[in-house]
Parts: sequence; structure tokens; C-alpha cells
Amino acid sequence: MQIAIPLYDRFTALDAVGPYEVLSRLPGATVHFIAPETGMKRTETDMLGINADLCLGELTEPDVFVIPGGYGTRALIDDAQMIDWIRHAHETSEWTTSVCTGSLLLAAAGILDGVEATTHWLEYDLLERLGAKPVSRRVVRQGKVITAAGVSSGIDMALVLAAEIAGDDVAKAIQLGIEYDPEPPFDSGSPAKADPQLVELVTQLARGEQEELEAAS
Amino acid sequence: MQIAIPLYDRFTALDAVGPYEVLSRLPGATVHFIAPETGMKRTETDMLGINADLCLGELTEPDVFVIPGGYGTRALIDDAQMIDWIRHAHETSEWTTSVCTGSLLLAAAGILDGVEATTHWLEYDLLERLGAKPVSRRVVRQGKVITAAGVSSGIDMALVLAAEIAGDDVAKAIQLGIEYDPEPPFDSGSPAKADPQLVELVTQLARGEQEELEAAS
Repeated sequence: MQIAIPLYDRFTALDAVGPYEVLSRLPGATVHFIAPETGMKRTETDMLGINADLCLGELTEPDVFVIPGGYGTRALIDDAQMIDWIRHAHETSEWTTSVCTGSLLLAAAGILDGVEATTHWLEYDLLERLGAKPVSRRVVRQGKVITAAGVSSGIDMALVLAAEIAGDDVAKAIQLGIEYDPEPPFDSGSPAKADPQLVELVTQLARGEQEELEAAS
Repeated sequence: MQIAIPLYDRFTALDAVGPYEVLSRLPGATVHFIAPETGMKRTETDMLGINADLCLGELTEPDVFVIPGGYGTRALIDDAQMIDWIRHAHETSEWTTSVCTGSLLLAAAGILDGVEATTHWLEYDLLERLGAKPVSRRVVRQGKVITAAGVSSGIDMALVLAAEIAGDDVAKAIQLGIEYDPEPPFDSGSPAKADPQLVELVTQLARGEQEELEAAS
């Protein structure tokens, strides 16, 4: 089974690496990091670079693909090369998935038209403008399409996907292998649970970073 | 604040990227991926390469460092360059931390002699042989040293650390930013919770992989 994770400038590392860590452990699966051109792609912080080992044209019909999120997605909504790759890959994929704002690119490719999907809680409005029906669930399945909420939710999504692909026992064994028995020290992981002042703070910070990136590009 | 995450051949990606995703969001913090030499280091699956942007000698006194785990740790227990780097960095660090089998290297550097620490549940025996007192808690703090359990536990550890460094509200805001409101589809993330047959299966698979790597090296 060939699994593709497309990278791009200013992606969010955990969006890509969470699903990688689960899906790379599926028996017979190979995860490929791919990009418009091979070589290093760096995160939005510029502190981490992951190598794209293949270019998009070298893996056009993966069995599964995962679009990670990141600030860089906004610049790709109108990028013909990436959006065409997604549209084409979706025609033959067994599973089409995204984490965080990766779903904006699935929506831009027309894959989420009129259906329920999710994204980072900060971007429900944009997801809706792109044609989907945003919902605040952590993992949203619509046929062969699975979208996950912000950043860390890709781990949960990948375990759901692993169970679909290889059965519950394999998914449970992978969960045990990565010792995924989460114990966050706070209960502040969603806007419904966090202090409203922190929700406002994170919203303002994210808007500022987004504007800074747009001004710089 | 300078935060170092040393990489090496056959590391586990999520061990490094979970803490990166949390700690890179601390105000004023810079996370550096470092290695004996700069350039790509690949995971034990060989499917993912992260760039080491600095070599060990370029950052010998970080404020914080995180040793990720992976099969590659076993070859480093006797590696003077890495162990000396850890021992030296620990002399001046504010926080010395590890994820998964990264604690084997802290132990090899003498940092865990006679104190409680944790590691991946498969490696308690080896951690004990290296002088520590293994415990099965997810995040174990001993003064300025924090060790975390297997792979995904690095996210929980990094949130604990973020709170120590910058206060609870900053840690909670980071948790909200990465939408860390975990919802695993199964409750199989620790040997105490998983089906005993799956614990046995994962143990056998891990031993096989370890032997394969040792035979190949």
C-alpha cells in the first residue's frame, strides 16, 4: 500500500508526522513524503525541515493520501499543480484524508462540496466559503474521505484509518506500540473546553501570524 | 531560549516532533535540530528524513534539550560523542528531557543513576540495567530532569515542561493551538490497558525488528 503525504512550504510538522507515525506501522504500507519538487520543505516556524523524497509527478495514484495543514495552505488554494494533483489522486484513492487546514485544499479541489468536514477550529469560516459544511467533531468521515481537526488530531484520525484498512486489532497494536495513552496536563484542547480569554488570545495571535506571513510573501 | 533536539540514524519521528510542536510555540524559544554532523537523519522505517541544521558542537549549552527515542539509541549507548554531548549539556541546562528510549542515553550519561525515570514500556529492563529506577508513569520529573514514556507521550511531557517554563496559561494556549483534545478510537495505549495477546504480539514484533537492525549493522 502506497501512502502519500504531500509537503509544501510552511506546513505544520505534527499534522504530517502524527499520521506518518501510525500509518508507517501498517503491515505492507510505505509512506512517501512528496512535494512539487524533491528536497527540504520547512515548517511555518522555519525551525524544522522534512525531506520530500519524491516529486508529485512520481506518485500520482497513491492508495491513501494525507494532506497536512499549516499556514502554507492558504497560498495553495489557487495553486493549480497541488490542487490538480489532489483532484487526480482522489479519483483512484482508497482513502483521501486531511489534518487541520489540509481540508482547505481538499475543499479547493471540490472534494468537500456540500458535505460535512472539519479543520482547525480557527478556520471553519474559510472551510465553509470553500464549499464544505464545517463541523466541530475531531474526526469526520464521509465515505472514503476523512478530515481531522487541528494538528494533533491527525493521530486519532490515522488510528481510525488504520482500523478501516487493517482491522481493529492492528490499529490497537499500533496504538500500543506508540504508547498512545494520552494524559494532557490540562483540559484546554478545544475552544469548547478552554478558558474564553485563551480562545481569544490564540485567535488574535494566529491572525497576527497569518497577516505577517501574507505581508512577507 | 535555545532548545536542542539531537537526531541520529533510526530515530522515531513523533518522539522528536511532538515536543517540537509544543516547545516551538513558547514565546522567545527557538528549537534546533542537531546531530553529530548537519544534514538528513532518517527514521528507523527509512521513510522520513528530518534535517539536522546544526552539528552537536555548534550548540553545546542549550537551555533545554530533548533526547528522542528510536531503535538507533541502542547503538549510541556507547557512543562517546553523543554521550559526552549529553553529559556536558546537562551541566548547564535548565531542563534535561527525553522521550521513549531517549532516556537510555540520559542513563548512559549517568544522569539517571538511582532515580525514577521512564521509557517505552518495552525497555524498562534495559533502563534499569543502565542504572535508573524505571516506573510506568507517563511523565516522570526528577528535579530538572523529565523523562516521558513511549513515542506519543512526548506531547504530554512538552506541555508539562511548557507550563514549568512559561506558566499554565501559556501551556494551555499552546494545547488549544494544536487542538490537543485527544480522542483515541480505542483504549489500547498502554500494556496495562491493551489485550494481553496484543502486548505479546507487539513485544515479539519489536524484538524481531531490533534483531534485524542489529544483524544489518
